[in-house]
Amino acid sequence: MTLEGKQLIGSQAILTQGSVIQGIDPSSGERLEPIYYAGSKAEVERACELAEKASNLYSETDLDTRATFLEAIAENIESIGDSLIERAMRESGLPRARLEGERGRTCNQLRLFANIVRAGEWLDVRIDPALPERQPVPRVDLRQRHISLGPVAVFGASNFPLAFSVAGGDTASALAAGCPVIVKAHSAHPGTSELIGRAIQASVSECELDEGVFSLIYDSGFDVGQALVSDKRIKAVGFTGSRSGGTALMRIAQDRSEPIPVYAEMSSINPVFLLPEALKTRGPDLGKAFVGSLNMGAGQFCTSPGIVVGIKSAGLDAFIDAASTEIKSSGGQTMLTPGIYDAYSKGVEKLASNNHARHVAYGEAGEGPNQCQTGLFIANAGDFLADKALQEEIFGSTSLIVECSDLSDLKRVAEHLEGQLTVTLQMDDTDIDISRSLLPTLERRAGRVMVNGWPTGVEVCHAMVHGGPYPATSDSRTTSVGSAAIHRFLRPVCYQNLPEDLLPQALKDNNPLGVSRLMDGKREI
Amino acid sequence: MTLEGKQLIGSQAILTQGSVIQGIDPSSGERLEPIYYAGSKAEVERACELAEKASNLYSETDLDTRATFLEAIAENIESIGDSLIERAMRESGLPRARLEGERGRTCNQLRLFANIVRAGEWLDVRIDPALPERQPVPRVDLRQRHISLGPVAVFGASNFPLAFSVAGGDTASALAAGCPVIVKAHSAHPGTSELIGRAIQASVSECELDEGVFSLIYDSGFDVGQALVSDKRIKAVGFTGSRSGGTALMRIAQDRSEPIPVYAEMSSINPVFLLPEALKTRGPDLGKAFVGSLNMGAGQFCTSPGIVVGIKSAGLDAFIDAASTEIKSSGGQTMLTPGIYDAYSKGVEKLASNNHARHVAYGEAGEGPNQCQTGLFIANAGDFLADKALQEEIFGSTSLIVECSDLSDLKRVAEHLEGQLTVTLQMDDTDIDISRSLLPTLERRAGRVMVNGWPTGVEVCHAMVHGGPYPATSDSRTTSVGSAAIHRFLRPVCYQNLPEDLLPQALKDNNPLGVSRLMDGKREI
Repeated sequence: MTLEGKQLIGSQAILTQGSVIQGIDPSSGERLEPIYYAGSKAEVERACELAEKASNLYSETDLDTRATFLEAIAENIESIGDSLIERAMRESGLPRARLEGERGRTCNQLRLFANIVRAGEWLDVRIDPALPERQPVPRVDLRQRHISLGPVAVFGASNFPLAFSVAGGDTASALAAGCPVIVKAHSAHPGTSELIGRAIQASVSECELDEGVFSLIYDSGFDVGQALVSDKRIKAVGFTGSRSGGTALMRIAQDRSEPIPVYAEMSSINPVFLLPEALKTRGPDLGKAFVGSLNMGAGQFCTSPGIVVGIKSAGLDAFIDAASTEIKSSGGQTMLTPGIYDAYSKGVEKLASNNHARHVAYGEAGEGPNQCQTGLFIANAGDFLADKALQEEIFGSTSLIVECSDLSDLKRVAEHLEGQLTVTLQMDDTDIDISRSLLPTLERRAGRVMVNGWPTGVEVCHAMVHGGPYPATSDSRTTSVGSAAIHRFLRPVCYQNLPEDLLPQALKDNNPLGVSRLMDGKREI
Repeated sequence: MTLEGKQLIGSQAILTQGSVIQGIDPSSGERLEPIYYAGSKAEVERACELAEKASNLYSETDLDTRATFLEAIAENIESIGDSLIERAMRESGLPRARLEGERGRTCNQLRLFANIVRAGEWLDVRIDPALPERQPVPRVDLRQRHISLGPVAVFGASNFPLAFSVAGGDTASALAAGCPVIVKAHSAHPGTSELIGRAIQASVSECELDEGVFSLIYDSGFDVGQALVSDKRIKAVGFTGSRSGGTALMRIAQDRSEPIPVYAEMSSINPVFLLPEALKTRGPDLGKAFVGSLNMGAGQFCTSPGIVVGIKSAGLDAFIDAASTEIKSSGGQTMLTPGIYDAYSKGVEKLASNNHARHVAYGEAGEGPNQCQTGLFIANAGDFLADKALQEEIFGSTSLIVECSDLSDLKRVAEHLEGQLTVTLQMDDTDIDISRSLLPTLERRAGRVMVNGWPTGVEVCHAMVHGGPYPATSDSRTTSVGSAAIHRFLRPVCYQNLPEDLLPQALKDNNPLGVSRLMDGKREI
């Protein structure tokens, strides 16, 4: 497929004349063809108009049609073949294996949602039959299902050019819920975005859906995003990125005449607690494994382990020694964009010049441009608690060890944490009492609590929660990864005393969709 | 029980020295003893401190303990006996039968949530077992449950001194979810609030729960409410009241360093669409029944039918005639407070002086103070659409007929509606095609769609949705009535690879709570 550099608005591909957007190969600085141009308010207007027009009909597609559509997107992404991987490699600097894995995850995710759509549990069907004889007043027939919120604006993320971008988790879950989607492409990978956007556009057409179900708009600045989130036809927003970006969207959404939900996944330092017995028995192994997690994807994961908390001990020293050795032999890795590399370098410089943090080890300096040098620092718990600057996320492979003098020190660090996506316990059997005493604190501060693993790597499944209290996300009541994400884009409607003819399929007496129902309070599978 | 006029902070009853709050009998203007005094920031601080202290432990109460607590509240409310009804009658001007019914609903609601808590579906347990052999990477064990958000601030409403006040729907659902509750009492019924508050306080003690699970604070102004919603230990807000009050709380909650969810149920004009065949065959009956709904509780329901939409026809004329006759013989009814009566009178005056609205009928003028005079007005659809003032809620028993020239006019009115709690179709069999064409528009604009009923009267059951798009509520994704309201105060947490010993009860292998689980994507009851 030849890239054309065009906005995809419904079934059209439109050449605009806004400011120039160009993919950059971060490993060389080379600007990649073709040139893309920013969309304007006209494209936002047209995409919103089409999305609104498509919304009611798409929301009522039968379950199999909608599931088939999600599967068609997966197939069309796979049939792009290697040119997708090659383009994504050039635009992101990420290695082939990672992007092949990410493509697999993206397509599996679409297929998972296809299965979820077909099963129909998300409809949350509840039927309270009429009780005409009830005293003192009869009960009328009441039925509930969930319907889509309406058109959703999705912001592509730079760090997952496939799995959190044009056809990523937010798009898949919103389409699964019956919401048309308008994606604001991330300007770091416009070519990858176009390839995926074309695959979705083709799927809309193949499945004979209304063209307004999907549009894709490019922008290098904020105008398109602001216009989208402000538009009264947009009913929810999905975003993965920085805290400043996410909170800006929250403000726009709240200032509308009709405020709308914003699901912004923003920042997290993903604390790892090294408990005493684990350190004692496995300090060096933990140190080595930790650096493996820290270096994954050059640390450009929302779940990268940004702080490690342990009590001063021979075990912690052994952990630090092993981690240092591992870090010193870590090669430079190309970061996603020159902007991200720049922010990383500044973040590390700031930490290095902080009087409360001591440098422990650096990795090898990179040989090419935009290469991340792994870094490890250490601070004591008191300083960490007193100094907000030490608690800030550095996006990239630098981490801070927080050294505690004793267990109560470690507990204070836990209690002091902001909202996180993940929190990890490294523990051995005899650490169970400490773990048990920490758990009520930790589950209040994170969406995912894990034991003897590392936070990087997010399984796409039913039980996953990729979310957490603010500021990790804007809304702790949901997840952005896993099948439960479909609930973000739904709301309940009650139908009272409707004649059978008028009832939605999901609510008819004979259950034509074969979905699970809560019948007068009792679950019927 | 002797009323003492004290704040209930945890297990204490505290006499404060803030500004004076006194119940007023709206039927006479008489000030009722005892005098209450506004709480201060000190009470908010203490209540929040206790609530936070109680939160983790209360969140982990076993299901039976928590359910028994809700049942104890219901029993303790019932054992107050007739003095509760008498006090509520004096403070609200509402008749005995209505308040006895409301007490029944309040206690049934608490018992419904007790059953919901025991059943444990709200935990939404999901288990994705480990797949150690999976290629290319194994899957670790992942489990999800829902936990409480933390302490909740609840604002008592004036129009349901029992069912939406101190032990009303918001309190019941938040306590069911495992959240401590701090109620800001409505100053219109301080004595009723104290009686109910004492019943909850006694239940906390009888069930040997931490005292911080419940507190009750009085205030005549905004200070206590603002302080509560701003307090960093409060994690969600439940409110029923005016749009200005609800949006003010939304702003405070969004401006916090950690924004929190606000569930504000604010305003709704609850349109009733009279379809042509129904008007033709039942015009006069509909007119009479409509006035019955309009006059219920002096129109002081969130679901009072504020507009009626029909196409100009002999049937509509017959509806209007019958409604007019019924209204002219409607006696005055005492409104809840002098303030509400005053706002109602001003709203009716404003409508009467609007050039686009014609007066149709007035009820009898009241003989005592604060009596609501029923009113009916009419406007044509074009004027209604053009004039925002005609679309405003008048809280009380006045309604506006919107006369359409044809079906497309009626559809335009439907499309133009703001978010509503309810929308009603009066239809006969041959109206089915019109109903079918309207339904996709109507379900986008309301939380509950009903046929051949009247919006007043909200069943407390599983399928109920008392909610709807903004500005009917601040968050269309939930309901404030019915068992699904428990979900407002919960969030998901994922537990990855936890040893069995460390897993919460709900997630242990052998399912000791006996709750419904999604096991590897398959529902196990």
